[in-house]
Amino acid sequence: MKRVKLVVAYDGTNYCGWQVQPNGNTIEDELNHHLSELLQEEIKVIGASRTDAGVHALGNVAVFNTMARMPADKISYAMNTRLPSDIRIQDSCEVPEDFHPRFCNTVKTYEYKILNKRFQDPIRRLYSLFYYIPLDVERMRKAAAYMVGEHDFAGLCTHKPEITNTVRTIYSLDIEKNDDLITIRVRGNGFLYNMIRIIAGTLIRVGNGSFEPEYVLDILEGKDRKKAGETARPEGLTLVKIEYTDKE
Amino acid sequence: MKRVKLVVAYDGTNYCGWQVQPNGNTIEDELNHHLSELLQEEIKVIGASRTDAGVHALGNVAVFNTMARMPADKISYAMNTRLPSDIRIQDSCEVPEDFHPRFCNTVKTYEYKILNKRFQDPIRRLYSLFYYIPLDVERMRKAAAYMVGEHDFAGLCTHKPEITNTVRTIYSLDIEKNDDLITIRVRGNGFLYNMIRIIAGTLIRVGNGSFEPEYVLDILEGKDRKKAGETARPEGLTLVKIEYTDKE
Repeated sequence: MKRVKLVVAYDGTNYCGWQVQPNGNTIEDELNHHLSELLQEEIKVIGASRTDAGVHALGNVAVFNTMARMPADKISYAMNTRLPSDIRIQDSCEVPEDFHPRFCNTVKTYEYKILNKRFQDPIRRLYSLFYYIPLDVERMRKAAAYMVGEHDFAGLCTHKPEITNTVRTIYSLDIEKNDDLITIRVRGNGFLYNMIRIIAGTLIRVGNGSFEPEYVLDILEGKDRKKAGETARPEGLTLVKIEYTDKE
Repeated sequence: MKRVKLVVAYDGTNYCGWQVQPNGNTIEDELNHHLSELLQEEIKVIGASRTDAGVHALGNVAVFNTMARMPADKISYAMNTRLPSDIRIQDSCEVPEDFHPRFCNTVKTYEYKILNKRFQDPIRRLYSLFYYIPLDVERMRKAAAYMVGEHDFAGLCTHKPEITNTVRTIYSLDIEKNDDLITIRVRGNGFLYNMIRIIAGTLIRVGNGSFEPEYVLDILEGKDRKKAGETARPEGLTLVKIEYTDKE
């Protein structure tokens, strides 16, 4: 038996997210189905990040065990001839038997893109949030700086009863502006449910002038999600990469 | 009566091109239909560039006459509430009665994008050509330099019997590489049928080593389309903008 790690890119537009659902086509469903057909045994992958409906990925990670003799590095090529065009395996390799994609030390990088102009751009509509009120990026950067570091992010996530520890570390939170496209790039050791979309919604509120940058401190201290901005729409969010920092 | 100019952006993925067709949904059809409904009279637009099926635009131009009293600059807002999400009017304004979008001096800018990496990127698949053989951008730049200026481009277009003059001027042909994305940016006074896609297909042949850069001179002198590279797929092509250079 060997354990195989896949790096998976996908356009989330037409999927109900990563995780298998009773009614809904998901990335995990597609991987399980095509891996099982390819390797002629029942495969169930374990995903690193269970992205929501409409969220995209350049480098999510899935892991599975197989008895098949196909070399691990050839699985990417074979799968890419089978998968629909909106999912592509970027890499496949063998990993130690005890490697678990969620219970390891990682640095995850996400980007949230905002198209900030008068009218929507059709060719970017599926991969950014369209927002026509001009945003002040300098204000957004000031607010973002308060979020960097180890904090209790209970006020910046959607509550899930099974999650009791809401302390996470954001290593960096950079905001770039290129013409009309604002990119919020977040790197951290892990993120709570909807956390990046609520951070984006909160930074938009700062950028449009309805929150002061310092108000982020109130949100963090208050630990009350109602104080923060909206959960920004999913199409702006892309999981860029997951780096495993444990020695392997 | 007034004459109105629209700047139109669209995602060409789901359309049979610009021009009205007996069987097929086109950009022109959508504009005619929604303008006629909005202004309560039959409108038929004249387009500046009749882009092919699958080709995108950030700034194509359409012109029409109307008796309606709606101010020209408000038509963009009103149309954008009616059009499907893959078409958006970027600007609307009044122009002189004799303004014709095709019979004016213009500078047109197109971009052809090539994603040059091992595996397709799902979130860029609709807006670039995927090409996995590594391309030598320096060779492509050398070949492109031979195309700049006034030339007979009969060897770099698809023949159309009604077009007798195949001399055109390319003002600039720049090739940029950012990570794995190669952008061919062409500016000229007008382009023949399939000309930019055949230029892209020819530059790809130079980049992969199957043509020498100097071979472009043979193609131009031979005036024989069969000497050139393939017509590169439509999804890589975007009409970026049309500048009208006549004094108005």
